[in-house]
Amino acid sequence: MAQALPPLQPLLDEITEVARASENRGKVADYIPELAGVDPDQFGIAIARPGQPTVMAGDAQVPFSIQSVSKVFMLALALGKLGDRLWSRVGREPSGHSFDSMLLLELEKGYPRNPFINAGAIVTTDAVLQGATPRETLGALLRFIRAAAGDEAIHINERVARSEIATGHRNFALAHYLLSHGNLKNPPELTLGTYFHQCAVEMTCAQLANAGLFLVGGAGAPRLVSQARIRRINALMMTCGHYDGSGDYAFRVGLPGKSGVGGGILSVVPGVAAIAVWSPGLNHYGNSKLGTEAMEQLAARTGWSVFGPT
Amino acid sequence: MAQALPPLQPLLDEITEVARASENRGKVADYIPELAGVDPDQFGIAIARPGQPTVMAGDAQVPFSIQSVSKVFMLALALGKLGDRLWSRVGREPSGHSFDSMLLLELEKGYPRNPFINAGAIVTTDAVLQGATPRETLGALLRFIRAAAGDEAIHINERVARSEIATGHRNFALAHYLLSHGNLKNPPELTLGTYFHQCAVEMTCAQLANAGLFLVGGAGAPRLVSQARIRRINALMMTCGHYDGSGDYAFRVGLPGKSGVGGGILSVVPGVAAIAVWSPGLNHYGNSKLGTEAMEQLAARTGWSVFGPT
Amino acid sequence: MAQALPPLQPLLDEITEVARASENRGKVADYIPELAGVDPDQFGIAIARPGQPTVMAGDAQVPFSIQSVSKVFMLALALGKLGDRLWSRVGREPSGHSFDSMLLLELEKGYPRNPFINAGAIVTTDAVLQGATPRETLGALLRFIRAAAGDEAIHINERVARSEIATGHRNFALAHYLLSHGNLKNPPELTLGTYFHQCAVEMTCAQLANAGLFLVGGAGAPRLVSQARIRRINALMMTCGHYDGSGDYAFRVGLPGKSGVGGGILSVVPGVAAIAVWSPGLNHYGNSKLGTEAMEQLAARTGWSVFGPT
Amino acid sequence: MAQALPPLQPLLDEITEVARASENRGKVADYIPELAGVDPDQFGIAIARPGQPTVMAGDAQVPFSIQSVSKVFMLALALGKLGDRLWSRVGREPSGHSFDSMLLLELEKGYPRNPFINAGAIVTTDAVLQGATPRETLGALLRFIRAAAGDEAIHINERVARSEIATGHRNFALAHYLLSHGNLKNPPELTLGTYFHQCAVEMTCAQLANAGLFLVGGAGAPRLVSQARIRRINALMMTCGHYDGSGDYAFRVGLPGKSGVGGGILSVVPGVAAIAVWSPGLNHYGNSKLGTEAMEQLAARTGWSVFGPT
Repeated sequence: MAQALPPLQPLLDEITEVARASENRGKVADYIPELAGVDPDQFGIAIARPGQPTVMAGDAQVPFSIQSVSKVFMLALALGKLGDRLWSRVGREPSGHSFDSMLLLELEKGYPRNPFINAGAIVTTDAVLQGATPRETLGALLRFIRAAAGDEAIHINERVARSEIATGHRNFALAHYLLSHGNLKNPPELTLGTYFHQCAVEMTCAQLANAGLFLVGGAGAPRLVSQARIRRINALMMTCGHYDGSGDYAFRVGLPGKSGVGGGILSVVPGVAAIAVWSPGLNHYGNSKLGTEAMEQLAARTGWSVFGPT
Repeated sequence: MAQALPPLQPLLDEITEVARASENRGKVADYIPELAGVDPDQFGIAIARPGQPTVMAGDAQVPFSIQSVSKVFMLALALGKLGDRLWSRVGREPSGHSFDSMLLLELEKGYPRNPFINAGAIVTTDAVLQGATPRETLGALLRFIRAAAGDEAIHINERVARSEIATGHRNFALAHYLLSHGNLKNPPELTLGTYFHQCAVEMTCAQLANAGLFLVGGAGAPRLVSQARIRRINALMMTCGHYDGSGDYAFRVGLPGKSGVGGGILSVVPGVAAIAVWSPGLNHYGNSKLGTEAMEQLAARTGWSVFGPT
Repeated sequence: MAQALPPLQPLLDEITEVARASENRGKVADYIPELAGVDPDQFGIAIARPGQPTVMAGDAQVPFSIQSVSKVFMLALALGKLGDRLWSRVGREPSGHSFDSMLLLELEKGYPRNPFINAGAIVTTDAVLQGATPRETLGALLRFIRAAAGDEAIHINERVARSEIATGHRNFALAHYLLSHGNLKNPPELTLGTYFHQCAVEMTCAQLANAGLFLVGGAGAPRLVSQARIRRINALMMTCGHYDGSGDYAFRVGLPGKSGVGGGILSVVPGVAAIAVWSPGLNHYGNSKLGTEAMEQLAARTGWSVFGPT
Repeated sequence: MAQALPPLQPLLDEITEVARASENRGKVADYIPELAGVDPDQFGIAIARPGQPTVMAGDAQVPFSIQSVSKVFMLALALGKLGDRLWSRVGREPSGHSFDSMLLLELEKGYPRNPFINAGAIVTTDAVLQGATPRETLGALLRFIRAAAGDEAIHINERVARSEIATGHRNFALAHYLLSHGNLKNPPELTLGTYFHQCAVEMTCAQLANAGLFLVGGAGAPRLVSQARIRRINALMMTCGHYDGSGDYAFRVGLPGKSGVGGGILSVVPGVAAIAVWSPGLNHYGNSKLGTEAMEQLAARTGWSVFGPT
């Protein structure tokens, strides 16, 4: 028999307490100056379920920079615009290398492994940008996120975006390399300007969990994309959502998830719930350290794993 | 609402008919001489569910060489023997490179990415072999598989094993390389002798599906390993079970699975069923071409995906 | 006994005749639009010796784009400016990879293997540029080349430079990647603008052979750099001057040399002569095909090899 | 004007004194147990010139394990047996990777970069071994070395050979990998047995310098191979003789050379002399630290560089 689901509010409170007491909080990303100053002691978590009130604890209503979590939303837009033609420009395989590696991109001649490593996300943004302006593209992204979250207040932090434009040299290298292989269709400045703004979207855990409901599917969940597409996006999040720590996340948590260097993670319990967790300190893969631990704890206590009953 | 499960026997019959009519059947692995002569026109499929009769179609009772599918059973043995100490010798991440690549093994100094690429499987077998003879180790493996399948007739094809010993040069290279990093504890001939015999286990689809029930978990399923371990093995099958085609399998099928170059695939629907499919022709990743297509079809028709309702 | 040197004019005439009759002329570089239109049937060769008249044949007075041959002159400037401090930013080893590879640059964390692959040449130019404007830097380079060649007419082809700026995406990728490792001190546009102009210097074989005299050393040769530095630059030309075809050039020709994708090669016979050869068609390493064959023929006939008497 | 050659005996005495006083002697190779026990304080040097008495200093008459220096002699045998057909199995380019790297061998599908990295040397030995027994092959090698050195006492240290067979796992990995690509024609044990014995040849500096005379060429030098072949072997020694430290050796010393992990280096001054130096401590490339420094000093003082007059 499947275990009974424990009451969620006390569980989140307990997980938050454990997280707050943790001595090893990881290391805040310091290569984006605007993010380097974030207080590492923050921790928030929120669970959204179709037709039920959002459960949350800790700093769940403090906005943070979602960074690479935005790639999930942009991927949904790209699939909506191009469908399977997107896969002629980017693959669907875990990379086995760090998120900004050029080695594999060279071995594979400018065809990025998946839409969640930086090169693949740049190509994905570039695809959505084609035939549109950055303003229109970012507008479409914000509309999608706001509709998914049911919250019109979600916005882009312009200072963070500018900070990344000024320091994102590795991403410029990737973009120019993609261009040299004909796999960038807009000028690098244009695509990267859009990409850095997309990464600078700010959300709270509560907002992000609700925005993630469109990936839950099933009865009562918002239907922004088709059920078949939901399964595919979740599959990509499972195999590629945590860079070269994706296998570890699948092993420990057992749920599709996408992390960002701002310390946020969005995870999906298919048919059941969307979960957002945030803590700025990162582990050595570049994923939130306490966030991953909290998700592991939450999955163990709720039995929310796609890989088997408890 | 979740869709109703269609009657399985006519569905398997239909899938088998489609597979048999397929013109492009992939390419039979020719680097193992004993396997090169297998008739490529064969196709079988079987579904096992706890407490229900096995459903099967096509050549589901023809034995084939399970090859790398055996790595799932050896991994279960290794975790039973060493627990988490296994992870000091092998990782849990998808590799992003082919199953017999040396490049990543060199970059990571002899620590294989996961237990399903060849280097990692050799280490796993080596770990089980420690303190035991090859005969004892293979005996334990056969006992495990026979108990899981409930079939004492399952055996090792000695000719296939010898054929691989004589031609498995790449695996010898991997084993000696591991040894040079201190990550092989037995002589290469001993570990590889065991490894090649393990790969030469012969099973039918019906047997393999039943043997896979131990990974289904939940009410009525055999409990050879703990529920927590089931989830972890399934997670590894999802992220790493199809080599550098793992992302594609997750994307298209949405179930944990492990393939072998003999053309077999074992897939798990957590809490529900174990599925074995076999067709000798391989796609360019080295996974069964028609087998993958059949699994994709089966998953679409049954709604059996871990990534969302249909 | 060393063989007697044959009369050079008839020898160059003969080599030119053979080259002109060649059916397989290689392939003109087409990734720089302005160079793609060069007539592939051209071939020129010139030999300069201290205190003796220049010997030449074929199209030895037709100007061509020296491209990467310019890296020799910029290296001389960089060593003059920084001395051995240059080696903290760039290495002295052959790369074993193509001239624009990012793989090795990633493995070695942004420290380019040598000053002749693109990444290393960009760093070298960046070092000379520090504290100066592009105009001043290019002025210093032209003064050096003109002084070495004894010819004030040598200039930069602005259209070629602009063509490379517009299409040199791979070099932009390298520059941004270097910047991400802190190994670029000027803005990429500034360093690359200088770099592309440096590559667009136009010279004839006669001019280039004379400009190369500063690397010959010994009695009567111009002394623009110290004898110790001459030996070191020649060593680098020998081990790294032809990218991943450097070993082949050393094996076949036996002289230090530097090639450019414009089809030019500058080679040095230490203590004796400087040789320039030009033919636009390239072999698969990206070095002049007929130029290499001509140099091989010339070395065989004259006994001009540093690796042993004839 | 070329500088006058200083008297060699006092020069070698002085160089030996400096070496003996050196505090940082590098690190003796410890992966071959029989070599790990060698006294690191030893240093010897010898110069052989055609028709002149050998000049030597320090421990120039203490035998040491020549290890990879033997590859020069085996290459000469292989070229004598196969001529240019050897290059269908091994290349002529510096590798840019360490001497036992598998990464590049995988990227290049089992075609080793050059005959001096381990993979290439194994192929070279394998080529000489074809159609002969290991005993015959090693007999031919010893005859060649003894004839070159004019000393019948040179022999193989059987204990060192056995020590390497027992511990040379990386070389076994390379051999099996080559076999998997069809680039090994004898069983790995046979080729490696021969290879390890070849590496276990013992010589003194005095013997090695004299054995190297066959690469000096010109009047009075022994003519064991053609003058054209001498130039080609010297070219390979220049570009590939010190593994991924070859560029550094060319830059600092300016002479073709081949090093071994036993601490020996053989260098050639074309047309003039052969030099052997030995000191067991290695630098981080795996080449003799004091040996390299002594050669740099010797080249600077004598003006013996192929790259220009002093």
